[in-house]
Amino acid sequence: MKTVTLTSLCISIALSAPAFAAEPIQVIEPAKITQPEKVELGKMLYFEPRLSKSGFISCNSCHNLSIGGVDAIPTSIGDQWQEGPINAPTVLNADYMLAQFWDGRAKDLKEQAGGPIANPKEMGFTHELAIDTIASMPAYRAVFKEVYGDDKVDMDRITDAIAAFEKTLVTPNSPFDLYLKGDKQAITADAKAGYQLFKDRGCIACHSGPAVGGTMYMKMGLIKPYHTDNPSEGRKAVTGKEADKFVFKVPTLRNIELTYPYFHDGSVWTLEEAVNTMIDIQLGQSLTEQETAQMVSFLKSLTGEQPQITLPILPPSNHKTPRPQPFVAD
Amino acid sequence: MKTVTLTSLCISIALSAPAFAAEPIQVIEPAKITQPEKVELGKMLYFEPRLSKSGFISCNSCHNLSIGGVDAIPTSIGDQWQEGPINAPTVLNADYMLAQFWDGRAKDLKEQAGGPIANPKEMGFTHELAIDTIASMPAYRAVFKEVYGDDKVDMDRITDAIAAFEKTLVTPNSPFDLYLKGDKQAITADAKAGYQLFKDRGCIACHSGPAVGGTMYMKMGLIKPYHTDNPSEGRKAVTGKEADKFVFKVPTLRNIELTYPYFHDGSVWTLEEAVNTMIDIQLGQSLTEQETAQMVSFLKSLTGEQPQITLPILPPSNHKTPRPQPFVAD
Repeated sequence: MKTVTLTSLCISIALSAPAFAAEPIQVIEPAKITQPEKVELGKMLYFEPRLSKSGFISCNSCHNLSIGGVDAIPTSIGDQWQEGPINAPTVLNADYMLAQFWDGRAKDLKEQAGGPIANPKEMGFTHELAIDTIASMPAYRAVFKEVYGDDKVDMDRITDAIAAFEKTLVTPNSPFDLYLKGDKQAITADAKAGYQLFKDRGCIACHSGPAVGGTMYMKMGLIKPYHTDNPSEGRKAVTGKEADKFVFKVPTLRNIELTYPYFHDGSVWTLEEAVNTMIDIQLGQSLTEQETAQMVSFLKSLTGEQPQITLPILPPSNHKTPRPQPFVAD
Repeated sequence: MKTVTLTSLCISIALSAPAFAAEPIQVIEPAKITQPEKVELGKMLYFEPRLSKSGFISCNSCHNLSIGGVDAIPTSIGDQWQEGPINAPTVLNADYMLAQFWDGRAKDLKEQAGGPIANPKEMGFTHELAIDTIASMPAYRAVFKEVYGDDKVDMDRITDAIAAFEKTLVTPNSPFDLYLKGDKQAITADAKAGYQLFKDRGCIACHSGPAVGGTMYMKMGLIKPYHTDNPSEGRKAVTGKEADKFVFKVPTLRNIELTYPYFHDGSVWTLEEAVNTMIDIQLGQSLTEQETAQMVSFLKSLTGEQPQITLPILPPSNHKTPRPQPFVAD
């Protein structure tokens, strides 16, 4: 009978376990697509400007897959150029979030997808007109039939397909993921120092998991108040509780280099300022200039491979399709 | 010495000549890409919302490659939701046009590309800020260096690259092209009858060539006046001549099924109405319901293969990049 010492057992476990098992940030895995037809339909709908009253705004307008799944402006532009109430969160890796929207008012991507379509300040449409629009086109109905067994078009299916597409929008193989997987050269010495600071200073308490965020709600202005003109009250709008005032979903830091401007009010344009603000108001600490630079190096190592999207070709409208109303204000 | 009779010579010529040699409409050929790096740069710039003051509007906003290279609304939405003056012409096959814009005020795609960027009613930017924006990003400068030999960014290069991309946006292999090439089954009997009508009734006088239009200017309302609220005066704005009032570039009919609504004022939503209006005011004729349907069948046979576009991934802004001004009116 072979005997094993505790020491050799421990070494053996240490060598065989994945290098990143104990890390508070986990690797993002590539999307596994099991229903390609549904994903393709979802992509069509994601790029479909006719889901808006104007015929001009699609999901991709504010969650632009050329620029990190955001619009890169403080708050979004809605129907009639209305100024949106809050910074558009990225669609990239959004399925890792515990809920959707800054205040978590939608439980998942499917529930989220119906919101902007019917929001008068965003796409300004109605679900009824959205359904009529898609159902008017035989080419769309044929895809619905292929995906769902019959050609009925309803919001349940529209949002289900959009969510199926959005679930594929992950960004694996960032330098930091390669580092987690064992390639110690994948990130710079500065990024490594920044990651150590990120853990040592307590950022990791909120920004953890595969998405480096999105796993909890937290008050913005935990130690010191956050000053902003933005009237959003966060979770309070959902729960009605005073204690949830200014409590927001912790955003993902994946691809944070791409998803400026920062915070729910989109008021901060540089990672340096964002890092220094957070370490101050959330943790009551400060960083030297060098430490800030190291933290930013770490954050930039979280930029992953962006989804490669072939632009969908959408079927033409016909005489049954509701006509867009771009210049008719409500 | 072999002798050849005139009859056999004629038969020989008839058999060897391409079937479409004598047709007034010519086949659209696939794009030949000789400078792929320049085309790729042009694609990035075509999808670049940071070429607009708001950071929200790109070339693709109004010439959307998911929906036939147009925005499919009567007139375009510009900065601050301003109502554009004229219907956005399709970018598809636009290089076949004798000049650009409805009034032909730009001699080619390169000259056109600078217009909307600096038009206060369209993208609302300035050429200076557009250059500063692109030049601020090292990743863009690296591509400029690869394409042009050094990393200087100027409007000449920006518009040159956009034009190079746009030249690739052709739509070959429509059913009608296959028919012209000899596949007599490629279009329906109705479409064939429609094509015959198109030639017999005189539509072909203006709508000819590979793009089925775009080869000349013509008065809108040649036989009877065209009634519209749209104030555009066409070529008169370019030449100053009263005789050029309401004279516009004859639009391409390629992909016309996709490029509704029709005419320079975007007032007509169906091909049936467009055909009947044109035959009335331009040719002083009328069509039976069946003839109109045949004409529409022919027009729909002009829908070609749409360009397959992989969405470009654009480099992130940095502290040197001018910030967008979405909610600042001039």
